[in-house]
Amino acid sequence: MNDLLPITVLGLGNMGRSLAAAYLAAGHPVTVWNRSADKADQLARSGAVRAETAAKAIAASGMIVVCLSTYEAVRSTIMPLETELAGRVIINLTTGTPDEARQLDTWAKEKGIGYLDGAIMAVPPMIGSPEALILYGGKKELFEEYQPVLQVMGGGTTYLSEDTGVALLYDLAMLTMLYGAWYSYFHAHALLRTANISAEMFLPYTTNWLQHLIVPSLTSPEAARILDEGDYTTAVSNMTINKLGLDNIVKSSRELGVPADWLLPIQAVADQMVAKGYGNDGFERVFESMIN
Amino acid sequence: MNDLLPITVLGLGNMGRSLAAAYLAAGHPVTVWNRSADKADQLARSGAVRAETAAKAIAASGMIVVCLSTYEAVRSTIMPLETELAGRVIINLTTGTPDEARQLDTWAKEKGIGYLDGAIMAVPPMIGSPEALILYGGKKELFEEYQPVLQVMGGGTTYLSEDTGVALLYDLAMLTMLYGAWYSYFHAHALLRTANISAEMFLPYTTNWLQHLIVPSLTSPEAARILDEGDYTTAVSNMTINKLGLDNIVKSSRELGVPADWLLPIQAVADQMVAKGYGNDGFERVFESMIN
Ligand SMILES: NC(=O)c1ccc[n+]([C@@H]2O[C@H](COP(=O)([O-])OP(=O)(O)OC[C@H]3O[C@@H](n4cnc5c(N)ncnc54)[C@H](OP(=O)(O)O)[C@@H]3O)[C@@H](O)[C@H]2O)c1
Ligand SMILES: NC(=O)c1ccc[n+]([C@@H]2O[C@H](COP(=O)([O-])OP(=O)(O)OC[C@H]3O[C@@H](n4cnc5c(N)ncnc54)[C@H](OP(=O)(O)O)[C@@H]3O)[C@@H](O)[C@H]2O)c1
Repeated sequence: MNDLLPITVLGLGNMGRSLAAAYLAAGHPVTVWNRSADKADQLARSGAVRAETAAKAIAASGMIVVCLSTYEAVRSTIMPLETELAGRVIINLTTGTPDEARQLDTWAKEKGIGYLDGAIMAVPPMIGSPEALILYGGKKELFEEYQPVLQVMGGGTTYLSEDTGVALLYDLAMLTMLYGAWYSYFHAHALLRTANISAEMFLPYTTNWLQHLIVPSLTSPEAARILDEGDYTTAVSNMTINKLGLDNIVKSSRELGVPADWLLPIQAVADQMVAKGYGNDGFERVFESMIN
Repeated sequence: MNDLLPITVLGLGNMGRSLAAAYLAAGHPVTVWNRSADKADQLARSGAVRAETAAKAIAASGMIVVCLSTYEAVRSTIMPLETELAGRVIINLTTGTPDEARQLDTWAKEKGIGYLDGAIMAVPPMIGSPEALILYGGKKELFEEYQPVLQVMGGGTTYLSEDTGVALLYDLAMLTMLYGAWYSYFHAHALLRTANISAEMFLPYTTNWLQHLIVPSLTSPEAARILDEGDYTTAVSNMTINKLGLDNIVKSSRELGVPADWLLPIQAVADQMVAKGYGNDGFERVFESMIN
């Protein structure tokens, strides 16, 4: 492996363009292809070779980075090109389900194509930085061979396991947390908007709350222990008071005209837990309704 | 105001006990009352005076801290005692709706009772610490008079406005964020559990993700500007890719047996946004579905 390994990038959306730009910046010969050709314009000006077809793009490099919207898009783009791909290595950074990753890996093995499945736990502006976390599952030897080149996309390049689906399982978990945090943040700001409190005015409270309460409550070893051991006893905040807190948010949101539908299933689980006699346990007991 | 102002605490749940303990620790004479008398045992051993009735507890002090489950509980406890309360000051730290706070304030004014409404943005173990944020709405003069005594409960004692309901609006906003963060964290860990990945094993990822992605994405001035100005253009992550991400979480959760009901309304809003032609905007545009 050296710095000059030619790289092909298939897919030049917001993420694909950043990946290609990171390789260009690091001095690699970069060939790019995108279904809609205009998305390659800026990269071509920066020194990337624009391929007219995916087949030609693949022919240019031994390592093919794929970053499209969905696995369906990936399958329809690469499966017809099994001959061109044989003997090369696919680094698939597209979001999908763990099973989709495993199935594509099986197909690749059958066709004599190297395959690593990655999940990018970063946004495009972070690509190439030491903080950008990119998780991989698949054949360990292959990862180790390509690690220095993968590192160009993110300093946090990390190998997880031989299970090709594992990176997308981690991705699912982390994205679930992201949508919970984001959507509830928007909901909070819709409530505040009814009293003309702007997000800018509320920023010190958002920051204080995340740093002093939310983050510590989710990152302490004690928080992990509660779930891992299923020990829900508490002297801090019980299920009943959390159920009442949820009732209060739903009621107030309705009074203020902010839709609270996403909270109803959460409220229902808390209600059930109280009805089952777990009112004195911690709110963490809702976790029991999710596992079996 | 001096350190020795007698304080009465009505309600000795997890939070009320911590509030009373903070005043005891600071040297105030403390009288306590709770519907179920046994919750006063430990405080009585630490020097609190246990009152047999709420009326007797009120008679002991000029400042009455109230911290019960609900406003309904507060109303049924204090409204029959308007004569005993006249000329005293109620510091109501119970969670409720902004309107409930305003209505109780109106009642108190009619009866010649001082009233401040507070929201405790902290858990019981934080009470008395410099970090404990407690927000107040109501008459400014009254807050200023009692501020040094209120400060005993939390170093982050903060006056917001003459609107008695405002502390509970801030509370609603912050609790909404908390439930979004917590519930999605549990969901994430239920997904991980299917592959025997414990919360302890995942802790470095949870921490990295919160600190490098979630917190910065919610606490940057840019995040606030997007909502305040309604400017949803993006070159980072578009609505379509977020809709596909949500589809993927819902589909994978079902495959793995983790209930995803709470995500369906969020997914539906993202779907609608794409259907309306906002696929190239940022995910923040879902905020438009919450405001009017
Ligand atoms: N953006 C982020 O913050 C971020 C972060 C982490 C992971 N990711 C993941 O990275 C992947 C790409 O995301 P993105 O933000 O770059 O999305 P995007 O900007 O919407 O780009 C999507 C890309 O997929 C291509 N595509 C879609 N359907 C196709 C098909 N049937 N055949 C060929 N190409 C097709 C598009 O081509 P056209 O230009 O022709 O439409 C475009 O290049 C997704 O799996 C996403 O989850 C994104
Ligand atoms: N715990 C926290 O982390 C936290 C954080 C911030 C704010 N808060 C708020 O603080 C308040 C109290 O919470 P908590 O955690 O202390 O709850 P808790 O442990 O469940 O205690 C509830 C208290 O309310 C009393 N109560 C309930 N119904 C009553 C009625 N009808 N008449 C008289 N007393 C009644 C209970 O008396 P019995 O003992 O007789 O049942 C008990 O003292 C809530 O509004 C909560 O939202 C709590």
